[in-house]
Amino acid sequence: MDFSSFLTSLATSFIIFVVLMLLFTWLSKKPSNNVIYYPNRILKGLDPIEGPRTRSPFTWIKECLSSTEEDIIAMSGVDTAVYFVFLSTVLGILVLSGLVLLPVLLPVAATEDTKKPTETSGNGTFNNLDKLSMGNIKRGSPRLWAFLLGTYWVSFVAFYMLWKAYKHVSDLRAAALSSPEVKPEQFAILVRDIPPVPQGQTRKEQVDSYFRQLHPETFYRSMVITNNKEVNKIWEELEGYKKKLVRAEAIFAASKTISKPEGTRPMNKIGFLGLVGEKVDTIEYCNKKITELVPKLESEQKITITEKQEAAALVFFNSRSAAVSAGQTLHALMLDTWTVMEAPEPRQLIWSNLPIKFYGRQLRQYIVYVIVALTIFFYMIPIGFISAFTTLANLRKLLPFMKVIVDRPALKTVLEAYLPQLALILFLAMLPKFLMFLSKKEGIASVSHVVRATSGKYFYFSVLNVFLGVTLGGTLFGTFKTIEKEPNKVIDLLGEGLPDNATFFLTFVALKFFVGYGLELSRLIPLIIYHLKRKYLCKTETDVKEAWAVGDLTYATRVPSDMLVITITLCYSVIAPLILPFSVVYFGVGWLVLRNQALKVYVPTYESYGRMWPHIHTRILASLVIYQIAMIGYFGIKKFPYSAFLIPLPVLSVFFAFVCTKKFYGSFRFTPLEVVSQELKTTPDMESIFRSYIPPSLNLEKFVDAENFEDALSQQASRTGSFSQQVTRMGSFA
Amino acid sequence: MDFSSFLTSLATSFIIFVVLMLLFTWLSKKPSNNVIYYPNRILKGLDPIEGPRTRSPFTWIKECLSSTEEDIIAMSGVDTAVYFVFLSTVLGILVLSGLVLLPVLLPVAATEDTKKPTETSGNGTFNNLDKLSMGNIKRGSPRLWAFLLGTYWVSFVAFYMLWKAYKHVSDLRAAALSSPEVKPEQFAILVRDIPPVPQGQTRKEQVDSYFRQLHPETFYRSMVITNNKEVNKIWEELEGYKKKLVRAEAIFAASKTISKPEGTRPMNKIGFLGLVGEKVDTIEYCNKKITELVPKLESEQKITITEKQEAAALVFFNSRSAAVSAGQTLHALMLDTWTVMEAPEPRQLIWSNLPIKFYGRQLRQYIVYVIVALTIFFYMIPIGFISAFTTLANLRKLLPFMKVIVDRPALKTVLEAYLPQLALILFLAMLPKFLMFLSKKEGIASVSHVVRATSGKYFYFSVLNVFLGVTLGGTLFGTFKTIEKEPNKVIDLLGEGLPDNATFFLTFVALKFFVGYGLELSRLIPLIIYHLKRKYLCKTETDVKEAWAVGDLTYATRVPSDMLVITITLCYSVIAPLILPFSVVYFGVGWLVLRNQALKVYVPTYESYGRMWPHIHTRILASLVIYQIAMIGYFGIKKFPYSAFLIPLPVLSVFFAFVCTKKFYGSFRFTPLEVVSQELKTTPDMESIFRSYIPPSLNLEKFVDAENFEDALSQQASRTGSFSQQVTRMGSFA
Repeated sequence: MDFSSFLTSLATSFIIFVVLMLLFTWLSKKPSNNVIYYPNRILKGLDPIEGPRTRSPFTWIKECLSSTEEDIIAMSGVDTAVYFVFLSTVLGILVLSGLVLLPVLLPVAATEDTKKPTETSGNGTFNNLDKLSMGNIKRGSPRLWAFLLGTYWVSFVAFYMLWKAYKHVSDLRAAALSSPEVKPEQFAILVRDIPPVPQGQTRKEQVDSYFRQLHPETFYRSMVITNNKEVNKIWEELEGYKKKLVRAEAIFAASKTISKPEGTRPMNKIGFLGLVGEKVDTIEYCNKKITELVPKLESEQKITITEKQEAAALVFFNSRSAAVSAGQTLHALMLDTWTVMEAPEPRQLIWSNLPIKFYGRQLRQYIVYVIVALTIFFYMIPIGFISAFTTLANLRKLLPFMKVIVDRPALKTVLEAYLPQLALILFLAMLPKFLMFLSKKEGIASVSHVVRATSGKYFYFSVLNVFLGVTLGGTLFGTFKTIEKEPNKVIDLLGEGLPDNATFFLTFVALKFFVGYGLELSRLIPLIIYHLKRKYLCKTETDVKEAWAVGDLTYATRVPSDMLVITITLCYSVIAPLILPFSVVYFGVGWLVLRNQALKVYVPTYESYGRMWPHIHTRILASLVIYQIAMIGYFGIKKFPYSAFLIPLPVLSVFFAFVCTKKFYGSFRFTPLEVVSQELKTTPDMESIFRSYIPPSLNLEKFVDAENFEDALSQQASRTGSFSQQVTRMGSFA
Repeated sequence: MDFSSFLTSLATSFIIFVVLMLLFTWLSKKPSNNVIYYPNRILKGLDPIEGPRTRSPFTWIKECLSSTEEDIIAMSGVDTAVYFVFLSTVLGILVLSGLVLLPVLLPVAATEDTKKPTETSGNGTFNNLDKLSMGNIKRGSPRLWAFLLGTYWVSFVAFYMLWKAYKHVSDLRAAALSSPEVKPEQFAILVRDIPPVPQGQTRKEQVDSYFRQLHPETFYRSMVITNNKEVNKIWEELEGYKKKLVRAEAIFAASKTISKPEGTRPMNKIGFLGLVGEKVDTIEYCNKKITELVPKLESEQKITITEKQEAAALVFFNSRSAAVSAGQTLHALMLDTWTVMEAPEPRQLIWSNLPIKFYGRQLRQYIVYVIVALTIFFYMIPIGFISAFTTLANLRKLLPFMKVIVDRPALKTVLEAYLPQLALILFLAMLPKFLMFLSKKEGIASVSHVVRATSGKYFYFSVLNVFLGVTLGGTLFGTFKTIEKEPNKVIDLLGEGLPDNATFFLTFVALKFFVGYGLELSRLIPLIIYHLKRKYLCKTETDVKEAWAVGDLTYATRVPSDMLVITITLCYSVIAPLILPFSVVYFGVGWLVLRNQALKVYVPTYESYGRMWPHIHTRILASLVIYQIAMIGYFGIKKFPYSAFLIPLPVLSVFFAFVCTKKFYGSFRFTPLEVVSQELKTTPDMESIFRSYIPPSLNLEKFVDAENFEDALSQQASRTGSFSQQVTRMGSFA
């Protein structure tokens, strides 16, 4: 890739971004689009727009810049605030690195007197960018000292910023957890791996008596986890018919025009997808179905609560400290029974995963790891090919019929700029759902934990496949024979591969941020979908609300893809410092755009109080170690006699990670007693705390007094239990 | 070493043992020796001997065999019982292995038709023992299948026995911890890394207010750890003079014979070691010193309590569950402050280690690890030489002047049998004290933990140096060139080295157990020392008591040296199954002798409720893995085409270790809530629990009401504190 195609890529990306930004300014002014551009504010009951409606294209930027961390926490929670700490930390690392590296290393590289192309720009297309990089330095030149010191500078800047950030996030988390608001999850613990029920007891009695004995003064009550598969199915069916009924009534009401006051009763077919089968009156049909389903649901609810109790439970305590203490204390002698943990929020509890047993979870975890490892390994092959086809020259050589397209200069430049990157991006878009699915199958109890697990897998995937794959792959094509002979030269290969791919990654980053963040900000696709839906599908208020419903910031993919950019940037920070300003712009624009989205658009679906941070921290450090090892390799190739001075760096990084974990990690894993010892604003309403954990499918309004209801049922269960035991015993005599 | 010298070694060892055993029978009958042979019973207020005094030489054996685990726990505590579980488990593994391996593998090996010496008995001294070993099997022979299956059998037997033992020890521990007796350590937690005292508070106020806030209902009081160096010194000096005074008075009283009713007042010199300096009247001098020291001690006690408070404390709770919960709950946001752990017993608390800070402990640990690693590495060299000199043939060749001795057949046999083993044993005797010192320097809080740490270090030392050193070293002498060329062939070398050294290790084990256990049982050396002391030194009752005082079973060296025997036995179990009966006898006799000692002799100085077991378990598994890897190497050398079938074994072992840790280890690390939830026999006397932790040097009888005393002092300290702050502030203005 030559310099002009790089500039073309940059320019087109920038134009796209500007166009999308202007579109956003124009579209977001229209009140009819408010639900697309300000859903978070609307749901919080705020005015969509503060101040006058006449807004310049830069008003949103001003608003973002003037917003504080408290605003973010208030509007979008601690998790989002932590994500911005992450972005600011990365920005800090890059800016501080750039402030030293750019003015020092660029002149050092540019003034190096090299007549012929240096040995590392292998394909011979020596370009202007390469003149400003470490590739321009002669082997063994004393100028390499500057680069070596640069490597140290970047590492130390990273250590400093990460330390500060960890401390800050730690305080954020503590402040949120110690807030005097009543949070149901702070009063509950999750108990898994409950041993088999002793004879003559129900599961609920077993749990109650166990915890009442161990926590006589602080135990409030327990909720046994049930198998809700059946009841959920019925409930969803019921809800579906209810919704359909409301819709049909709305359609019917709308059809009552002045000319036709009796209206048209809506009809539908009851067969497959409403396309075949008998045609019925929708309102009547739905009413009939609902009257059928309500008793069915009620009886299923009773069956679920009494007979489908599983070996897991939520246990509630009457104070925060008691719950925190109980969640950290070993309860049973055998560790694979009565395992306790702090309860996740009600909304993020993965009910169906809770009964999975201790060894089942371990086993599932390892199976998932193996599958992920296989995925990472087998995706290596296609990525290697993509990277090899990257250059049009290769394409032309291998696919001669492409010559017609490739030889047109304009087309050629565009193709060269985007083709490989687009392939890469599309390719990566396929994965997250699969990884999310796998993570959920591990048996994890909360959504936020699944998101972290997915993010981790996606990070390893991206770094190994995209970055290392492209870097090593590109080099592999030329030096396949070297690898065959000496397979332990991967570090060297990494060093060799890096400079060749610098501009490739530069354009990758440029494309990603300008187009990606442009689309993010303008929300073109949700906007179009919303307007289409509203016009053709939405009949009721609920329909409209559903049409503009937004999710959260999707950390599972956002964090690892940022991580990939960080890894790339760090690795090139010293080799080609010119990458730094691009990355700074990437993260800067990202910060602005996402700040806008966090304040106005996205609505978090869970809150883990910054549990994501240790995960992010470790992965930034992993990137740093990859960078340090790559630099050792690259300095080795440059035949710099003092490159051994770099060896302490990865050791330092590991040590730094160790100290951080020792100092900070524990308070993310468990809630420290200190932070929950503050007084609460109000006396907690234990009943409503308990009720907040009842899943909607079990929560019929009819049973207002859940306590009585459940106690009645548990007595019934006791009878049922002993009856079924009798049956079993009789069975064994038969 | 040939067969006859092996038999000589065995026979002499056996004769020594029988002689020592008879000596024991004879000596232990004399009532004057009761304090040597029955101190544990005497201190527990029991009759030294149950039943009639006419005892056959086998009475003690009968008594040992009829004793139950409850007897052991009652007489010597859970730790000793766990040690016997260890011995029984090992015996079980060896007996079960032997029952299958001996009748199967010996005939398979003996009937192999080999005319010439097999390739593995390198030095050509083909002997009778080798005929019964795997070395006799031809390369690639199908008979190797039997040995391969044998390898599996031993591993599975070990898994089964270890699982059973872990479960049993777990129950023992739970039973002991849940006993309704009041144990002070169950009401206390140890708090370290307390942050700096805030202005205007004393350390005690800081600790009290912190814990009172976090545990408002269960906090009883706290005891701040002080720097007792100075006060201990004075106290010891005082105690010394007190003792001297009692002695002098006893001497004076004894000198008042009828012929000389006024007696001779004892005199002593006050200079260096009582050899030089002014001669004074001892009674007067001691009285003077005591009157001088008592006020000095009192003032130093006050200074210590008020001004030498350190950043650690013991915090007492009014119930066992509260203390257990608090000891497992994260208290502070920053993990390197307010770290909590369950308190060790008062008698095993290492007071001086408590104030060492978090990172200090980490740093110390790593420094100690490096020193131990260096020790292990540098001891390799002498051990290698010892092993090379093992054969007299070598000795003769290298030191020609030895020929005169070596050529006498009788002398030669004895020398050949004992020389190398004695060198090895002497060599190993030097180490434990050094390792104990290092472990203590790590900053560990309790004696039992130091013992575990020492045992671990000693285990790695023994296995690496003695076993691997001798095995590889012996082979190295012959195949040094191989190593130089291919340094990664260590597994092969291990396999090659094993058979050569089988008889060496057999005699090593024989010597160790017959002589070692003979001395242990007869207690000849303590007996002689006691009688000498009583005759020439002891003047008072206290002196006599001190003369026969016994310690505990010294697990720090006993466990690792047993481990070494286990490692050796396991490694040879399949190669030369004849080692199994010898090991069974070793552990059987060990069980008997130590059971006698545990019941009658040793008095445990601490109780850790079986905390040693996970440590033992892991190390038995480590031995098993060494065995499995060595077998892979040995089968490889035998060119057995199916030796790859052994590769799953080490993987299985690691998996087994993982499952055991997951299932059992937690309840050794922390006390489960379950086991302390039982009611206590009596309401705990919190005052006496608190007082049991006050070190003797701070515990003057004068201050009966410790609470008032301490409160008064803490107020004084508060004044002193603010005064010294004023001074500091004034100083900063100066």
